[in-house]
Amino acid sequence: MQEDILNIINKKRLKQELSKEELEYAFIGYLNNKIENYQMSSLLMAICINGMSLRETVDLTDIMLKSGTVLDTSKIKGIQVDKHSTGGVGDKTTLIIGPILASLGLKVAKLSGRGLGLTGGTIDKLESIPGIKLSYSNDEFIKNVNKVGFALMEQTKDLAPLDKVIYNLRNATGTVASIPLIASSIMSKKLAVGAKYILIDLKVGSGALLQTEQEAKELASTMIKIGKSYDKVVIPVLSQMDTPLGDNVGNALEVIEAMEVLKGKKGHLRDLSIELSSVLFAKATNIGLKDAKKKVNEVLDNGQAYKKFVEFVENQCGSLDKIQVSQELKDVLSDKEGFIEKISAKKIAEVSLNLGSGKKKLSDKINYGVGVVLKKQISDYVKKGDVLAQIYQDVKCDYSNEVLDAFKIVKEIKNK
Amino acid sequence: MQEDILNIINKKRLKQELSKEELEYAFIGYLNNKIENYQMSSLLMAICINGMSLRETVDLTDIMLKSGTVLDTSKIKGIQVDKHSTGGVGDKTTLIIGPILASLGLKVAKLSGRGLGLTGGTIDKLESIPGIKLSYSNDEFIKNVNKVGFALMEQTKDLAPLDKVIYNLRNATGTVASIPLIASSIMSKKLAVGAKYILIDLKVGSGALLQTEQEAKELASTMIKIGKSYDKVVIPVLSQMDTPLGDNVGNALEVIEAMEVLKGKKGHLRDLSIELSSVLFAKATNIGLKDAKKKVNEVLDNGQAYKKFVEFVENQCGSLDKIQVSQELKDVLSDKEGFIEKISAKKIAEVSLNLGSGKKKLSDKINYGVGVVLKKQISDYVKKGDVLAQIYQDVKCDYSNEVLDAFKIVKEIKNK
Repeated sequence: MQEDILNIINKKRLKQELSKEELEYAFIGYLNNKIENYQMSSLLMAICINGMSLRETVDLTDIMLKSGTVLDTSKIKGIQVDKHSTGGVGDKTTLIIGPILASLGLKVAKLSGRGLGLTGGTIDKLESIPGIKLSYSNDEFIKNVNKVGFALMEQTKDLAPLDKVIYNLRNATGTVASIPLIASSIMSKKLAVGAKYILIDLKVGSGALLQTEQEAKELASTMIKIGKSYDKVVIPVLSQMDTPLGDNVGNALEVIEAMEVLKGKKGHLRDLSIELSSVLFAKATNIGLKDAKKKVNEVLDNGQAYKKFVEFVENQCGSLDKIQVSQELKDVLSDKEGFIEKISAKKIAEVSLNLGSGKKKLSDKINYGVGVVLKKQISDYVKKGDVLAQIYQDVKCDYSNEVLDAFKIVKEIKNK
Repeated sequence: MQEDILNIINKKRLKQELSKEELEYAFIGYLNNKIENYQMSSLLMAICINGMSLRETVDLTDIMLKSGTVLDTSKIKGIQVDKHSTGGVGDKTTLIIGPILASLGLKVAKLSGRGLGLTGGTIDKLESIPGIKLSYSNDEFIKNVNKVGFALMEQTKDLAPLDKVIYNLRNATGTVASIPLIASSIMSKKLAVGAKYILIDLKVGSGALLQTEQEAKELASTMIKIGKSYDKVVIPVLSQMDTPLGDNVGNALEVIEAMEVLKGKKGHLRDLSIELSSVLFAKATNIGLKDAKKKVNEVLDNGQAYKKFVEFVENQCGSLDKIQVSQELKDVLSDKEGFIEKISAKKIAEVSLNLGSGKKKLSDKINYGVGVVLKKQISDYVKKGDVLAQIYQDVKCDYSNEVLDAFKIVKEIKNK
């Protein structure tokens, strides 16, 4: 036993290909506590540096997928689509895209997670809506999907449990940045939900998992190939994430902004939501991107998408009228004149986390009403004393300087 | 803290050089239980694959060395020499070289270890001599060195304790085969003993840590450079280890063979012992290799080296006349006619271990009298029914087939 795992680690250390049996022995052994965590982390680092072949990556995805239960989606009527984002500060696109696609007749069955580190989770965001129910049996969930077209619940523990333990170990051992490991992690969870069309919003940039466009393209290509081997269509879209997505960061604030966009608010968040929805809708219904975009704009403009969002929340017992944000506001004023060149997503996320919008330790309680609202965006011209942002707070601490620090204001913008 | 170790791991994952402070943070942190074993194993794998610069290797050696106490050898009179072997089945050269060099006037202060896995340890071997004392205070040990010229004791726990914990983790995580890690492990222990001239017997071959001569040369070169930075002379000698060294494998049997060689027995073991002694003696006294060899042969032929061995054992309270081997012998007969092309060191070592000459688990008791004695050597011509080896056993199991299996007998030998 001991010798077997050492042979497997040594093979990967020497950049050799592992068989599916060997991958199963190591990874399922780890899930069953037969392989030590210090052995798995050594293997993960060897995989990080020496890579995995596509065959190994597909096999590892399959092992992760089958380590848990797979949602039976045979009772979903119509075309099932899914959407995943590799994380971003202020990313509330799920709450916009879901209703758009549902109002266009697609079936969006979405399992979401909670916040991790600096990035918030959709479950945490939706829990800012009093009364909302985000835990269902699979049958109830499928019923919701069929009834509303868009349903969302918290992903259960028996969904790819192997991915969960491996993900936690990777986070603690500097073995996160590996395309085969990222691809198998994302794909195992998506495949467990069973949608035929899977949109992946791949974030690239300084704060993201992937720093370069080339890495993102490689990851995209790997995920498309994994999808193919399951007869699924993976649609990767690359987007930048140096800046918070939209204006609002914080749970209730983000739900409110999603509704604003669904009600017609313009800006980058709306543009990205339209792009993602259109690409997925076009693929899933086999129409041109232009036609898809037109239809997406229609359901946004005629209020159907917003109505669908309200229907979704009400169907899951939430009271939108009871959503609350913190009443203590603090303006952050510009200390100079110029153009806004950058707004650091990381720094805004840190302030939001410190205000209480996420958990620093497991025992922390989330404060749903706090957060940061940007009042100016990239390229905007500001004068000294202009309000750059507003902090929604419940704490006595003053984070104005930290928020101000997130803004880079310059005399001239190089790339207009 | 958590972020610091992840930064360090990620740097090495990306093949960047770590500062001495970063190496200290990680390795001393691990020794002090502040860094988790799964984090250290991930870092070790990154080092295994991405390597370390000479500067990093010297720094890691220094960190390991200073993690424990350093023997104060200022009171040793004369030229202090030391010798290390990277392990080999049946390797009892320490017990031959020590007395040779001591009878030539050098001071051999040797700290040894116990058996690990298939390779026996010098301490286990010497403990087959009833009454022998192998544990001393540093002062007593130095006194023994000055009195006899050759003294040997078990290396204490406070000698490079960091090396010990790292070595154990490497063994369990497939991170053994790394030249910088091997070099810093060996050199930290050697530097802690303080000899000016350090001979390293580097074993190469299928059963050894290093499989190719090129790797061995790289390791040798690294150790020479580490030595230089401490003003020490490291003398690496490469030797093969596919075959057991000498005829006898097993604790008492090996002590007996060492004495036989000191009393004049010919063969490969004597040749290697003369070579190693001569190279070290030549360097330490700045004479030519030819002259050194002549002097080494002299002390072997005139019995002085043997007398020195007896003096060493008696000074450390051992009773050589009471040494015992198992009385139950089993002949292993050849099943064919031809030339012996190979004798597998690994297979012979496995039999010896199974007979009880080493510990398979920590709670096992060593049986000092058991082992295997080869009656034929490489290139010998044998007939069917000839005695190839004798098993000295205390167990009822029959290992004849396993020993026979270690011999590869062919019709013709290719390279004579």
